[in-house]
Amino acid sequence: MNANELKTLLTALSAGEISVAEGLEKLRTLPFEDIGVAMIDHHRELRQGVPEVVLGESKSAGQVFSIVECMAERGRNILVTRLGADKVEPLLTRFPDGEYDPDARTFCLVQKPIEPLGAGKVLVVCAGTSDLPVAREAAVTARMLGNEVDELVDVGVAGIHRLFARADRLREATVVIVVAGMEGALPSVIGGLVSVPVIAVPTSVGYGAAFGGVAALLGMLNSCASGVTVVNIDNGFGAAFAASRINRLGGPKP
Amino acid sequence: MNANELKTLLTALSAGEISVAEGLEKLRTLPFEDIGVAMIDHHRELRQGVPEVVLGESKSAGQVFSIVECMAERGRNILVTRLGADKVEPLLTRFPDGEYDPDARTFCLVQKPIEPLGAGKVLVVCAGTSDLPVAREAAVTARMLGNEVDELVDVGVAGIHRLFARADRLREATVVIVVAGMEGALPSVIGGLVSVPVIAVPTSVGYGAAFGGVAALLGMLNSCASGVTVVNIDNGFGAAFAASRINRLGGPKP
Amino acid sequence: MNANELKTLLTALSAGEISVAEGLEKLRTLPFEDIGVAMIDHHRELRQGVPEVVLGESKSAGQVFSIVECMAERGRNILVTRLGADKVEPLLTRFPDGEYDPDARTFCLVQKPIEPLGAGKVLVVCAGTSDLPVAREAAVTARMLGNEVDELVDVGVAGIHRLFARADRLREATVVIVVAGMEGALPSVIGGLVSVPVIAVPTSVGYGAAFGGVAALLGMLNSCASGVTVVNIDNGFGAAFAASRINRLGGPKP
Amino acid sequence: MNANELKTLLTALSAGEISVAEGLEKLRTLPFEDIGVAMIDHHRELRQGVPEVVLGESKSAGQVFSIVECMAERGRNILVTRLGADKVEPLLTRFPDGEYDPDARTFCLVQKPIEPLGAGKVLVVCAGTSDLPVAREAAVTARMLGNEVDELVDVGVAGIHRLFARADRLREATVVIVVAGMEGALPSVIGGLVSVPVIAVPTSVGYGAAFGGVAALLGMLNSCASGVTVVNIDNGFGAAFAASRINRLGGPKP
Amino acid sequence: MNANELKTLLTALSAGEISVAEGLEKLRTLPFEDIGVAMIDHHRELRQGVPEVVLGESKSAGQVFSIVECMAERGRNILVTRLGADKVEPLLTRFPDGEYDPDARTFCLVQKPIEPLGAGKVLVVCAGTSDLPVAREAAVTARMLGNEVDELVDVGVAGIHRLFARADRLREATVVIVVAGMEGALPSVIGGLVSVPVIAVPTSVGYGAAFGGVAALLGMLNSCASGVTVVNIDNGFGAAFAASRINRLGGPKP
Amino acid sequence: MNANELKTLLTALSAGEISVAEGLEKLRTLPFEDIGVAMIDHHRELRQGVPEVVLGESKSAGQVFSIVECMAERGRNILVTRLGADKVEPLLTRFPDGEYDPDARTFCLVQKPIEPLGAGKVLVVCAGTSDLPVAREAAVTARMLGNEVDELVDVGVAGIHRLFARADRLREATVVIVVAGMEGALPSVIGGLVSVPVIAVPTSVGYGAAFGGVAALLGMLNSCASGVTVVNIDNGFGAAFAASRINRLGGPKP
Amino acid sequence: MNANELKTLLTALSAGEISVAEGLEKLRTLPFEDIGVAMIDHHRELRQGVPEVVLGESKSAGQVFSIVECMAERGRNILVTRLGADKVEPLLTRFPDGEYDPDARTFCLVQKPIEPLGAGKVLVVCAGTSDLPVAREAAVTARMLGNEVDELVDVGVAGIHRLFARADRLREATVVIVVAGMEGALPSVIGGLVSVPVIAVPTSVGYGAAFGGVAALLGMLNSCASGVTVVNIDNGFGAAFAASRINRLGGPKP
Amino acid sequence: MNANELKTLLTALSAGEISVAEGLEKLRTLPFEDIGVAMIDHHRELRQGVPEVVLGESKSAGQVFSIVECMAERGRNILVTRLGADKVEPLLTRFPDGEYDPDARTFCLVQKPIEPLGAGKVLVVCAGTSDLPVAREAAVTARMLGNEVDELVDVGVAGIHRLFARADRLREATVVIVVAGMEGALPSVIGGLVSVPVIAVPTSVGYGAAFGGVAALLGMLNSCASGVTVVNIDNGFGAAFAASRINRLGGPKP
Repeated sequence: MNANELKTLLTALSAGEISVAEGLEKLRTLPFEDIGVAMIDHHRELRQGVPEVVLGESKSAGQVFSIVECMAERGRNILVTRLGADKVEPLLTRFPDGEYDPDARTFCLVQKPIEPLGAGKVLVVCAGTSDLPVAREAAVTARMLGNEVDELVDVGVAGIHRLFARADRLREATVVIVVAGMEGALPSVIGGLVSVPVIAVPTSVGYGAAFGGVAALLGMLNSCASGVTVVNIDNGFGAAFAASRINRLGGPKP
Repeated sequence: MNANELKTLLTALSAGEISVAEGLEKLRTLPFEDIGVAMIDHHRELRQGVPEVVLGESKSAGQVFSIVECMAERGRNILVTRLGADKVEPLLTRFPDGEYDPDARTFCLVQKPIEPLGAGKVLVVCAGTSDLPVAREAAVTARMLGNEVDELVDVGVAGIHRLFARADRLREATVVIVVAGMEGALPSVIGGLVSVPVIAVPTSVGYGAAFGGVAALLGMLNSCASGVTVVNIDNGFGAAFAASRINRLGGPKP
Repeated sequence: MNANELKTLLTALSAGEISVAEGLEKLRTLPFEDIGVAMIDHHRELRQGVPEVVLGESKSAGQVFSIVECMAERGRNILVTRLGADKVEPLLTRFPDGEYDPDARTFCLVQKPIEPLGAGKVLVVCAGTSDLPVAREAAVTARMLGNEVDELVDVGVAGIHRLFARADRLREATVVIVVAGMEGALPSVIGGLVSVPVIAVPTSVGYGAAFGGVAALLGMLNSCASGVTVVNIDNGFGAAFAASRINRLGGPKP
Repeated sequence: MNANELKTLLTALSAGEISVAEGLEKLRTLPFEDIGVAMIDHHRELRQGVPEVVLGESKSAGQVFSIVECMAERGRNILVTRLGADKVEPLLTRFPDGEYDPDARTFCLVQKPIEPLGAGKVLVVCAGTSDLPVAREAAVTARMLGNEVDELVDVGVAGIHRLFARADRLREATVVIVVAGMEGALPSVIGGLVSVPVIAVPTSVGYGAAFGGVAALLGMLNSCASGVTVVNIDNGFGAAFAASRINRLGGPKP
Repeated sequence: MNANELKTLLTALSAGEISVAEGLEKLRTLPFEDIGVAMIDHHRELRQGVPEVVLGESKSAGQVFSIVECMAERGRNILVTRLGADKVEPLLTRFPDGEYDPDARTFCLVQKPIEPLGAGKVLVVCAGTSDLPVAREAAVTARMLGNEVDELVDVGVAGIHRLFARADRLREATVVIVVAGMEGALPSVIGGLVSVPVIAVPTSVGYGAAFGGVAALLGMLNSCASGVTVVNIDNGFGAAFAASRINRLGGPKP
Repeated sequence: MNANELKTLLTALSAGEISVAEGLEKLRTLPFEDIGVAMIDHHRELRQGVPEVVLGESKSAGQVFSIVECMAERGRNILVTRLGADKVEPLLTRFPDGEYDPDARTFCLVQKPIEPLGAGKVLVVCAGTSDLPVAREAAVTARMLGNEVDELVDVGVAGIHRLFARADRLREATVVIVVAGMEGALPSVIGGLVSVPVIAVPTSVGYGAAFGGVAALLGMLNSCASGVTVVNIDNGFGAAFAASRINRLGGPKP
Repeated sequence: MNANELKTLLTALSAGEISVAEGLEKLRTLPFEDIGVAMIDHHRELRQGVPEVVLGESKSAGQVFSIVECMAERGRNILVTRLGADKVEPLLTRFPDGEYDPDARTFCLVQKPIEPLGAGKVLVVCAGTSDLPVAREAAVTARMLGNEVDELVDVGVAGIHRLFARADRLREATVVIVVAGMEGALPSVIGGLVSVPVIAVPTSVGYGAAFGGVAALLGMLNSCASGVTVVNIDNGFGAAFAASRINRLGGPKP
Repeated sequence: MNANELKTLLTALSAGEISVAEGLEKLRTLPFEDIGVAMIDHHRELRQGVPEVVLGESKSAGQVFSIVECMAERGRNILVTRLGADKVEPLLTRFPDGEYDPDARTFCLVQKPIEPLGAGKVLVVCAGTSDLPVAREAAVTARMLGNEVDELVDVGVAGIHRLFARADRLREATVVIVVAGMEGALPSVIGGLVSVPVIAVPTSVGYGAAFGGVAALLGMLNSCASGVTVVNIDNGFGAAFAASRINRLGGPKP
C-alpha cells in the first residue's frame, strides 16, 4: 500500500537507516498518486456497492465478456453501457442473475446490495418515444449508482398539457434529467417549472437540420431557463453520473 | 398597355397591314412579360392600398428620403423597414403624417385608407422583450398589408404559465407569427396549442452558442409540432408578408 | 369526460356534498388538460376523417403492424409515413384495401370517406425527379388531410421554360408546396410568380457542398421572394400539414 | 391573491351565488397560473433575500436605472449583470450602498440580509486571468443567491502544479464551477480530482480556431471526466444559478 | 415544330380563319418555350453528336438500362456517369460497342461520330492517384462533348518538380481542369503557371479535417491565383461541361 | 535578360572560357525562373495595355498613392480595386485623368490605349441593387483587361420576367458573369438559358442565414445548371479575370 | 543519373559536339528536377534503411500485394499503413518475416537493418485505450524511420495522477507525440510539463459533439501550452514523420 | 526555497524532532509543486536570457506598462506581443532601449545578452505581404528565444518560381516556419522541398470563404506533404516557440 510505503520510508529515515539525501531523492521520484492525489479514489473505497462501469460500444462480445468476468470475480457490481443486443448472449449465459435492458442497451450485474444514496429522487423525463433509449440509459445508471429513480415518458413540448398533468411528479424530484432530441425545448419548460437542478441531455433523434443532435444541443445551451446544465449528445450515462453527485448532496451526510 | 399592344399587333396582322413573317419576328422579340407572365402583377393592380416597401438598412438617409418622396407623389402608401432612428428626421419633417416606430424601426406613410383583407386576425407572439423589435416589425408590416393584428409579448417557455393565461387570444387568431431567440422553443409549444398556421421567426437575440440566431433557427426547423414553418433570422417583414398571404385566404373572396 | 368530471365536481360543491376546501384541493391537483387546455383536441374531435399518423422510420415491421392494427379497430383513417418497402408486406396482407406508394413510402388506409376541407387546391411542385419521394410524401399527406392536390414534376430552374409552360396550374393553387434539393432556387422563382402562400421543402438530394440539404435549406431561408416559408430538410409531411392548415382557411367556414 | 380568488369563486358557488355553469365558465378562462402552476413561484415567495436579477447588457443606462429604482422600492435585493462601467454612474449616485464590480460587471444592491443557503461552499475556479470576468460574474451571483463562495484564479492546465498546490480548497467545495476559454481542458482535470458536481463554463477567450468559445465548449461537452455538466459560453450567471440550486440540496432542509 | 405552330397560328389569323380575340387567347396560353425561350435548345439541335447524359448514381441497373435503350433507339450518343460496376453488365451485353471505364465509372455509347469542337485542347490534371476517378470522369465527359483531351496524373504540390517536368503539356492546353483533394493547393500553383482558364475540382479524398472535400473546396475558392474558378466537390462532369463551353469559344466559328 | 544570361553562359562554356564543372555549378544555382518557368510572364510581356493591379483594401491612402505613383512612371495602365472613397482624393489630385467609380470602389488610370482582346462580349448580370458594387468591380476590371462589357442590373429570380425581357442581351454574350447574394439562384436560371460559360459570384449581401455569402456560395456550387463555375464571395475582380481569360479564346489568335 | 546527364550535355557543348543553340534548347526542356530541385531526394538517397511507405486504406488486398512485392524486390524496407486485417493474409504468406500489428493496422517488412537516427527518443503518449490504434501507428512509423520509441498508454487528464507517476519517462524524451480524442486536453498538460517539442494528434474517438475529432482538434489548436503543434485527425503517421524530422536534429550530424 | 523546506522537514524527522506521523501528515498536504513537479521550471532557471512574455492584446496601456516595469526590475529580458501602436508610448519613454516593431506589434526589452541556442537557423517564410505581421511576430519571438533567424517574404504558390529562386536559403534552415493565409498551400510545397521540420501558421488574411483563416488552417492540416505540423490561426508566437524547442535539439548539448 502506498501510504504504507511512505510510512516505511519515513520510519527508515527516522531510524537513521537512510540519509536525508536518500530520503529526498526517493520522495522526489515517488509516483505522485502515492502521497496525496490518492484522495481521488478515497470516497470510492469507502462507498461499497458503487459499480464498475464498462463502455460496451467499441468492444467485441468476447472483450466485454472477459472484462466483466474478471471484474465479477472481485465481487463488484457491474454496469455495461451501450451494449448491443448481439453481444449480450454470453453474459446472460454466464451470469443468469444479470439483467439486460434492450432499450437502455445496458447489462447490470448486482452481486451485493446497492447502497442507497439518501432520500432524494432522480426524475428522468423524456420528450418522445424515440428518445427513450437515452432516457433508459440514464435511469438504469442512476439506479446502479444508488439513486431512487422516477421516469416520465413522452411529454414533449408540442403536447405540453401531458407534462402539466404530471406536475406532482416534477415536484417530488431532487434533480431532473431531461432527455430530448429535435428542437430540445423541453428542458427550458421544465427548468421554469421546478426549483431543483435540471440536467439536459440532447439526443441524436431527428433528421435534416437536426444535425445528429446539434439542434437540440444548441437549444439546451441557450435555454432561457436558468439552472439548466447540459451534457454531450446521447450521454445518458454522464447525465445520471452528474445527477447522482448532485443527489448525494441531499442525502444523509457521509 | 401590353395586352393592347398585342391586340394592335394581331389586328394589324388580321387586317393584312403586316405580314406573317413580320408578326412572327415581332412576337419572338416582345418582352415576355407582355404576353403572359404579366399575371404576376395582376392582383397587385387590383388591390388598392398595398404599400410600396423600402428596405432602409443599407441606404443613406438621403437615399431613403428620395425614394420615399418619389413614391409618395404617386399617392401610394409606403412602408420603410429597418430604418435607423438617425435617418428618420428628414422623413418626419417632410411627411408630418408619417409614423416612425423606434422599436420596429419602421416608417409608415398612409396616404389612402388601407383596405382590410378580411375577418381573420394575425397574432404576433414574442418570447422575450429582446425579441420585441422583430415582433414589432412583423406587426407593423401586417397592419400595413391590411391585416387585423394582435400582439402578445414576453411569454417565453421558461414561464409557460404566462402563455396559458392568454389562451383565449391564441384561439382567436387566423394565423400566428411566433418570434423567439435563444433556443427558439416557443413555436413548438404554440404549434401544439393552436390549429391554425404558425410562422416561426428566429431572432439573433442571445450570445455564445446562440450563434446569432442559428440555435433558434435550428430549433424551429426541428419543431416537434407539425404545421410550423420558418423564415430567415430576424425576418419579421417576411413572416408578416407570408402571414398576410395566408390570412387573405380566410377573408372575403376577391 | 373531463368537462363532465369538472361539472360533477362543481355540482357536488354547489350541492354541499363537498366543502370549499375539498374543492380547492381537487382543482389544484386536477390534470391541467382537463380544465382548459383541452381545447387543443377540440377541433380534432369535431372533424371526422382526420387520419391517425404513424412515423414508420424507426419502427420495425412488427411494431408498425401492431400500431396500425390497433388504430384500425377504432375505424380511423391511417397514414404511415417513411415506411420502407420491406416493412409493408404484413400491412398489405392484413388490409387489402390499404395503398402503399413506393415513391412516397407511405401506406394509407381509408376506412371512412375523407372529408374535403373546401374549394382550395394544394399544388406540389418538384424541381427534379430525385426530389420526387419528398414531393410524393407531401402530396399523399395533403390528400389524406382532405385537400385537393395537384402535382407538377421536374420543373427545375435550369429549364425554367418548363415551369412557365404550366403557368395556368400555378394560377389555380391556393397554396404551393415547392420541393427542391441542390441549390433550392425554385421557391424563389415560384414565390415571384404567384400571390398565394408558398411552403418550401429542401431535400437532401445532391452531393459534395449540398451538405445533405443544407445548401437548399439556406437558399430557401434567404429567398429574395417574400411570402416563402420553410420546413425542415425532406419534411414533405410537415409541409403538407402546414399547407392543409392554410388551405382550410379558404374553405367553407366550420 | 390567486388562491383567494379561487376560494371566493368556490365559496360563491357553494353558497349558490353563482350557478354551476357560471363556475364552469369562469374556471375555464381563469389564468392557469392561478390554479396550479403557481407552484413555480412558491419557493421564491418563501425564501427571503433572493435577489431580483436584471440583465444590463442590451439596456441603456436610463432603462437600467428605472428598473432598479422601481425594484428597490419594493425592498428587494437586486443583482444587475453585464453592466458596462459607462452605465453605472447614475446607480451609484442614487444607491450609495450599492456595489459595482468592474471585473464581474455586476451591480449589487443588498437591502436586506442575504439568507445563507446552508453549510456547502461553491468554489469558482478560473483557468486564466482573461477568464476572470466570467468567473467573477459567477462568484458575485452565487454570493447574492446565498452561497458561501471560494475563488481560485489562474490554475490552467499548462501549469497544472499550481492547481495541485491548492488541492485542499478543491476538497472543501460542495460544487465546483470551472471557468475556462481556449481549449477548455480544466473541467476534465478537476472532474477527475473531486467527487462533487462540476459545472463547466466555456469563455469566449482566445482567437483563431477558438471560434469565440466554441473550442472550449466542445472540449467541455466531450470531457472524459464523468460528472461534468456545461452551460453556454460566458454564462457565469447561469452556472452560479445552477450551482446554487445544487448547493441548496446540501443545506438545511427547507 | 413550335415555330411552325406559331406560323400556322399567325397565318390562320392573317387569312381570317380565326379572330383577333381567338389569336390573343391562344398566344396568351401557349407554352412560353414555343415562342421565344426556344433559343435554349437552338444550338443543341444544330450540333450533331452531342450526347445524351444520364446520371447513373441513384438509379437501379434496370432503370439505367431502360433509359439508355430508349435513347439509343433515337440514334444519339449516350454518356452515363456515376455508374457502379455492378450495374453495367446488362448495358454491355445489349450494347457490345459501348465502353465502360471502371475508374471514371462512365459508360459511353457512340453511335455516330463525335463532332470535334475545334483546335483547342482540354488538359485534365490530377494531384494524386486517389483523385483519379474524378479526373477520369472529367476526361471522358470532355471527350464525349467533342474536345481533344490530355491527362496529367499524380503531380501534387508536395512533389512540385514532377509538375514542372511536364511544363510543355501545360503550355499546350486551351483550358485546364485541375482535380485535387486534401488541401486543394494544385490549382493555385497551376493558375500561376498558365495564362488560360483553370477550372478547379475539389475531391472528397482525404480524412479527418478534410471534411469530405470541404478543405479542398475552401482552398480553391481562396486561391491566390486569379483566373481560377471552382465547381462542386467531385463534380468532374460539371468541370468538363464548363471546360467544353470554354473550349468551343476557341474553335471554328459555328 | 535571363535567356541571354543563359546563352552567355553556354557560349563561354562552348568557347572554353569556363570549365564544365563551373558550368555545372552555375546552372545548379541559377534561379529556376531564368531557365524555363519564365514562360509564366511571356504573354504578359507581349500584350500591351494589360494593367497593373493594386488591391487597395488593406492599404493606407498614402501607401496606395506611393504604389500608384511609382507604377505610373513606367507608363503602365493601373487598376486599384477595393479602394474606399476616403482614400481616393490624393490620387485624383495627382492624376486628374484617373477615374474613380464609387460603386465599384475602383480607380482606373489609363495611360495608353487598352488593346481589345477580340470580338467577344462579357456580360455582367446582377441580381439586386445591393449586389451592384461587386458587379461593378467585375465590369470595370473586365474593361481594363480589354473586354467589351455589357451590364444587366436587378434581374433577380423573384421577378424572373425582367430577365426574360432582356433575352437578346444574354444571347450576345461570349461569357456571362452572374453576381448574386441571398440564395444565389440566378446563375442556375441563366446557366439554363445560355450556352456560353457562366461564372457565378456570390455576394455577402443578406442577413441571418445568409451567413455573409455562404448561402449564395453553396447555392451556386450546387447549381443544377451544368457549365456554371464559381469564385469566392464578393470576388468580382477574380470573376472578371477568369472571364477575360475565357473571352480571349474567342478573339483573334495571338 | 541526372547530374551525369547534365555533365554529359555540358561536356558535349564544351567539346563542340553540340552548338550553343542546341544546348540552350535541351536545357530549356530538361525536366527541372534533373538540374536543381533534385536536392529534394538528396538526403533520401544518402540514408539507407528509410522505408518505402504504402497507404493501404483505399487499395484492395491485391493492389497492396503487388506494390509491396514490386518494392520488396529492390531490397527496400517497407511500411504499409492503414491496412485492414482482411488484406494482410497474402502479404504474410509471401513475406513470412513481415510483421502485422493489428492495433496499428501496419505491416512492416525489414529487409536491411534500420539505421538509427541518433540518441534521442520519441515518446508516444495516449489518452485512452480507444486512442491506441492511432498511437500505435505513430509508434510503428517512428521505429521504421529509425527512432528509438517509448510508449505511455491510458494517461488521460481525468486521472492525471497516472501521468505524473510516469514523470521520469516524460523527462527522457526528445520529442513527445500526444494522441487524444474527446476533448483533446492531454497535449496542454504535457506541454506544460516538458520542455521538448510536443506534437498533438487528435483522434476521431468520441461521439455526439466530438464531431469525429473536431472537438479534440480545436482543443489542441487552442492549447494554452506554447510549443504544441498539431497534425490532422487520426494522422499518427504524419505525427511520427514530423517527430522523426525533429528527432534527427538531435542525433549525430550527417 | 521548496527543496530546502523539504530538506528541513526530512532533517527534522531524521533528528527525531518530529514524529513519523507528523512527517507523513506534512508531506501529504505540501503543495505538490514543491516536491517533484518543480522539474517544470528547471531548465528555465538554467537558461539565462530567456525572456518573460507578456500578451498585450487584452490589456490596457497602463496594465502593460505596470507588468513590464515590474519584470524589468528583476533584470529579465521582456517580450510583449500583440501590442497595438497606441499602447507603446509609455514603454518607449520609460525604456528608451526597448524596441517596438510596428509590423510584428512586438516590444522587446533586452537587458542582458540573449544566449544563442546553437548553430541551427529558423527560417520564417511568408506567402504574401498581408501575412507579414504574423511572420514578423514569429521572427521577433524566435530571435528573443535565442535563435538565428532568416526571413523570406512574398513567395506565394501562385508565383512559385520566386520560391525556387531562393532554394539555397531553404536548404540552410534547421526548421522552417511557413506563414500563409487564403488557401494556405505554401507549407505543402515547402514540405516537399525540404527535409527539416516545417511548422505551418495559417493567417486570418483573406475574405469571403477564407472564414478568418479557417480555409488556410484546413489546407495546412490536410497537407499532402508529411512532416508539416500546424498551430492556431495567426499564432506566430506559438510557431516560434515550438520552432525554438526544435532548434535547440540541434544546438550544443546543455
